[in-house]
Amino acid sequence: MTYNVQIKVMPLKELLDPQGKAVMSGLNSLGISGVEDVRVGRHITLQITADSEDQAKHKADEASKKLLANPVMEYYEIEMVN
Amino acid sequence: MTYNVQIKVMPLKELLDPQGKAVMSGLNSLGISGVEDVRVGRHITLQITADSEDQAKHKADEASKKLLANPVMEYYEIEMVN
Repeated sequence: MTYNVQIKVMPLKELLDPQGKAVMSGLNSLGISGVEDVRVGRHITLQITADSEDQAKHKADEASKKLLANPVMEYYEIEMVN
Repeated sequence: MTYNVQIKVMPLKELLDPQGKAVMSGLNSLGISGVEDVRVGRHITLQITADSEDQAKHKADEASKKLLANPVMEYYEIEMVN
């Protein structure tokens, strides 16, 4: 079966996020007020064929560790859809 | 009150996603099998101070339209957390 897996990769909370800061000042320039903090990361969707949901999740975890996220600067969260 | 808003910005389904294709071939090279499709987008978290959840969502929508997403190539989804 094919599983739809969503992975969110974000900069670690302890680290500065210059891209987020740039977006925040951009929003202020556009007159959108009330935005206190912005963080920008990546969102990756995978279609994984596997025998079970657990196996698909395991593959997504392996993919995140080996390729998608850099653990020095980022953390990731995996969400199974359907 | 401060609201935690999550925005997902992804390439339109009709368009090719070269970054996703690159990730897919990278995963195959790493021996992670069964991955049929990969799409890569952005994940943005905003902390928005507003009077109501509706107002916060409205601001997030305005931010997405004006700055975060390019409607020619991308679509976005807003999710309110908490």
